[in-house]
Order: sequence, then C-alpha cells, then structure tokens
Amino acid sequence: MNPRPILGLTLGDPAGVGPELCLQALGDAGVRRRCVPVLFGDARVIERIRSGVFKTHGRRRSPAGSPGRTVSLPEWEKLGRVREPLMVDCAAIDGRRFEPGKVSAACGRAGFVFIEQAIRSALKRQIDGVVTAPIHKEALRRAGVQYPGHTEIFTALTGARRTCMMLYSEVLTVSMVTTHIGYREVPEKLSVQRVQDVIELTAAAMQRIRRRPPRLAVCGLNPHAGEHGLFGQKEEERLVAPAVARARKAGIAVEGPLPPDAVFTPGQRKRFDAIVTLYHDQGHIPFKMLAFDTGVNLTLGLPIIRTSVDHGTAFDIAWQGKADPTSLFSAIRVAARLAKDRLSSGRPARPMLP
Amino acid sequence: MNPRPILGLTLGDPAGVGPELCLQALGDAGVRRRCVPVLFGDARVIERIRSGVFKTHGRRRSPAGSPGRTVSLPEWEKLGRVREPLMVDCAAIDGRRFEPGKVSAACGRAGFVFIEQAIRSALKRQIDGVVTAPIHKEALRRAGVQYPGHTEIFTALTGARRTCMMLYSEVLTVSMVTTHIGYREVPEKLSVQRVQDVIELTAAAMQRIRRRPPRLAVCGLNPHAGEHGLFGQKEEERLVAPAVARARKAGIAVEGPLPPDAVFTPGQRKRFDAIVTLYHDQGHIPFKMLAFDTGVNLTLGLPIIRTSVDHGTAFDIAWQGKADPTSLFSAIRVAARLAKDRLSSGRPARPMLP
Repeated sequence: MNPRPILGLTLGDPAGVGPELCLQALGDAGVRRRCVPVLFGDARVIERIRSGVFKTHGRRRSPAGSPGRTVSLPEWEKLGRVREPLMVDCAAIDGRRFEPGKVSAACGRAGFVFIEQAIRSALKRQIDGVVTAPIHKEALRRAGVQYPGHTEIFTALTGARRTCMMLYSEVLTVSMVTTHIGYREVPEKLSVQRVQDVIELTAAAMQRIRRRPPRLAVCGLNPHAGEHGLFGQKEEERLVAPAVARARKAGIAVEGPLPPDAVFTPGQRKRFDAIVTLYHDQGHIPFKMLAFDTGVNLTLGLPIIRTSVDHGTAFDIAWQGKADPTSLFSAIRVAARLAKDRLSSGRPARPMLP
Repeated sequence: MNPRPILGLTLGDPAGVGPELCLQALGDAGVRRRCVPVLFGDARVIERIRSGVFKTHGRRRSPAGSPGRTVSLPEWEKLGRVREPLMVDCAAIDGRRFEPGKVSAACGRAGFVFIEQAIRSALKRQIDGVVTAPIHKEALRRAGVQYPGHTEIFTALTGARRTCMMLYSEVLTVSMVTTHIGYREVPEKLSVQRVQDVIELTAAAMQRIRRRPPRLAVCGLNPHAGEHGLFGQKEEERLVAPAVARARKAGIAVEGPLPPDAVFTPGQRKRFDAIVTLYHDQGHIPFKMLAFDTGVNLTLGLPIIRTSVDHGTAFDIAWQGKADPTSLFSAIRVAARLAKDRLSSGRPARPMLP
C-alpha cells in the first residue's frame, strides 16, 4: 500500500471562512483516509474559533474538528515527513485582535505567511502538495503584499516558468489562457505560444487526473469562433489554430478553435475532458453554472501540487458555522489524487504538472 | 373570446430544415389552437417535400402537415384577415432546381423574399406577427442580399429606430447590447444610451410576456464586473452603472452591473426575469447551455412582432425528417402570446415592443 500523501492546508484569511472550513476538513474521516493533513495556521486563531463563536439557533457551539498536535515553525522544520495530522503554528497574527468578517492588513499579512510557509515545505518535499483556503485580495493589498492572488504568489515563490489556472469539477473542467485582466487586454495577451502552453499544461494535468490520454477542446475568441473570418480579426486562424496544430503534432487529442456558445452545450461538453478558454468569463460563466461552490481551482505548471477552493472568504457568513466545505473537500481529494499518483510512480521522468 | 392571432411563418432557406418544420407546425393541433398560421413559402418546394423525400428506416414517407389552401401573392393581398391556415405562394424559386442541404444563391434569394412579404403583410396588419424559420448567411450573401441576417433585415425593412436581440426560454432569458461583431469591437460599441435602450426594450418585452413588471439584471464587461476598477477601464462605472441608474429612475426594477460569472449561477439567475448581456457569448454561452435548441430568438424594438427559432438551417440533417420542431413551436407560442396581448388591449398607448 502506498503511504498517504501529506497535504499542507493553508488557513486563508483568518477573518474569512478558512478557519472553520479547515477545522471541518481536519476532523473529517474521509480526508484523513486520503491524506495526512498539515494545517499552516495560527494557534491563537484556532483557539479563538474553537472556544465557541458559532451560534446555531441561538445556542453557541464549537466548530467540529481538531487540528491535532500543534508545533512551532522551527519544530516543524526538524520533524521531517509526519504520519499524523498536525498544525504548524506560524504565529502570524494576534488571535484576539482582528474582527471576523472584516478586511484588515493584519489578516492579509497572516494569510500570506501561511502560504509562504506551505510553499517552502512543499519545495523541500516535507509535504506533497498545498491546498489553500481563501484569502482576500484587498486585505493582501493593505498588507503591502505585491501579488494580487494565490496564482501569482505560487508562480513567483516557486519560480515557475509557465503556469495557468484550471477549474476542475466532476461535470466540467476549464483552463484559462488569460485570467484576471480587463476585457480589452485579452486579445493582446493571446499568442500561439501561450495557447499552446495552456493546452500542454491542461493535457498533462488531465492525464494525471483521468489516468488516460485526455480529449481537449479550445474555444475561439469571437462569436461562432469568427465564422471563417466573418467576425473579428481572424484571431482564431492566427493564434488558436496554429497552437492546436502544434499540440496535435505533439500527440495531444485536441480540437479547436470551436464556437464558444456551442462547446458548453450538454451534447458537446461531454466529448471533452477539459475545455481551454481564452478569457476569464468564457470559462468561469459555464463553470460556475455547473459547479458553483463545489469546484476545485488548480494552478498548473508549478513544481509543486496546488489546489484550492473555488470560492472567496465569504466575510458575510464567516465565523458563523454556515460555510459549506464541499469545495475544500473536493480540493483535498484532487490534490491527494495528484500527489498519490506522484508518490506511487516515484520521481516521474515527465514532470507532474510541467 | 379573443380571436386567434394570425401569424406569418416564413419558410426559411428551402434547402434547410425550414420546410419540414413549417409543415409540422401547420399540422399541429396546438399551433392551430393558438393562432391562424399563414405560411410565406413556395408551392413547388412544399409539393416536392410532401411528395415523399423523407426516408425512415429505408422507407419513404411524407412529412406530416398540410399548408392548407394555397393562394398567390396578388390573391393574398386582396384577402384581408383570414380565419383558416393558408399558404402564400411567393413563387420565389424553381422547386425542382435546388439541392437540399446545399448553400445556393437561389435558396438565399427565396428565403429573403418570404421574409420581405411577411414583413409587408405585418406592417399592413394583415397578420399579427412573424415567426421565422432559419436562413443561411452564406446563401443570403451569394444572393446579393446586403443584410447579414434576420435581425438586420427586420430592422431595415420596418424602419426601426432601436432594436436588440433577446433569447427567451422558460429557464433563462438574455438580451444583448451587441451581437454579431468581433470580440475587440465590443467596448467601442457600448454606450450609456445603448445599454439603457436594451434595458428598456427588455423590460417592455418581459412585461408583455410575464404580464407583470419584470426584474432585470445587467452584466459587467470585465471579470468580477471590474472589481471596483481592479480590472478593465471602469467600463462598468462609465457605461453600465449610469444606464442602470437612468432605467431605475424610469421605474424599471434592474440591478447591475453584476459579475458575469455569478449572475448565471442557479441561485442568482432565478432572481431575474431576464439578464442583459453586453456581448454575444456572454449571453449565448449560458443560454445555449440551458435551452439548447428549445429557445426562442426575438427581435425587440420593431413595430411588428418577430420571433424565430434559435437554431440554423442544419443542412446536415435537412429534408430527412429528423429536425426537432421544439424551438419553432416555442417561437410560435411566444409570438402568439405577444400578439394576443396586443389584440386584447387594442392599439396600446404604450407600443408593444418599443
């Protein structure tokens, strides 16, 4: 039997739904069967939320789950690979001095420290992957963190050459050539090389998840994928078709450019394991329609495994015991699957997520 | 009891699925209960398809439905308002000299003539609305017709000042600020006035369909609707928000700009009777996912009622008896409802679809 992979969970913004979701995950038998969870968090935050802030029907109750043994960062670094659930206390915030559900620099800073420590441990192979709870963009900015979000932090701190975002669910998987940029900036960011990179990253990831060669589609940019040059500036012919041709030559089963409004219809989408989209909403609109709050956000192309919940800090319901852990459980399941595949094949000749 | 509205059905491109779908509609008891259908077509095309071109399991069979009494164009013009199904023979094509399933100038020309005659009759109030079967853009072009499609033909021939496309279904309705233009051209086509026009057209149409004041949403352009200027060039603040403010001032219940990937999720979309989208795929991707081949395409803002199937000529299955009439039946149902509302209120002070 293969050993269970060790997965780092980052607590996310302490004022958001991250702490209660992570505690639920740590207490879940299914999660513990799939992996050894190591929480990168803060002992005082956990103590505060476990001391009973939840109110249900007027009664206070403590959130489920225990972080297990708690160790300091220096202790953690000496531990090596662990076999039981554990919390690494990053001591990044005063657990009494922030307000749940509110944006603050202190929480932004803490959220960043948890991620930084988890990445460090993953690069050293002390853990086999990182699963992230949500952080808040505005809190990060207030803390003076120069990265807009998780994807950029992971890309920069791991020194990755090419990465992309993929949203995975049982019913639909989409990856994105561009993500958090304005509508107008999209065309200039498209290139044959970038489209090809995202096709290759998606194919490698889906091969690992499906354990067989995946079938992919790539969307066009214009209505009806340009309808043979009738709409747009032949972005399909100039930028997408050559990338698809190169990927096919490299042995990837990929079709495109396809009309964006046709490829997501029930009959079409079933034909593909993943659909490569050119901009944020082209992928996010259909994905959120089908897999709202249950999807997994992956960063492909990193030297480490990283999956994430597909929702935000949900400040409006944070620290109330109302948050739905489905997306976090899915993110852990996918990370465990990818990590286990890696563990069982040793150090693969082909990088896991190139 | 109100009289049944008289609806003109245009045959569409003779080489496509239009003829068989129109025959099915004419033969349908539900259609005849809702309206008096008048087919704008060609006697020789109908004769040819009814003489038995369908093959089912190796056996030839005739399509269901009869066009009823056939009259020439000059005869039709003298008839006034009719009470029984009828075919107006526009004598626009040699019924033996075209190939089903193939693009041709002759079929493009004929498809245009059917529309032209139906619009003429609707403007004279000899019929109460027009329901169109699909035409083929390339065939139109080969025939030297200067308009790219139905919406432009109807807009030009009725002299309409402001129009927009709306896709209607039981589960989702979307209207569009821009439609068949390239991705890059969208931002420059957006203006406060245009967004406001489409909100108003949509509100008026949904009021007629729902028979109560509708609730509308308007999408933003950028990811997360710009996230307060974080992405994009504040198109939401500059172009969408002022239009929403003006529409609300005019008494329309409309929210926006909303994040495009959130508004179509199951929980959100139920809150609205229709969602105003800014570009083709923003509306078409979610609509086709939920209402593929069953939706109705409406042109709003015309002085006449016009609905249409939400699919193309389907040349690959044309003249084989395989085409699904669901979308045409829905288009007839919606047109009948709009026309009946108009008939029962006489000449409304407020134009039906302004």
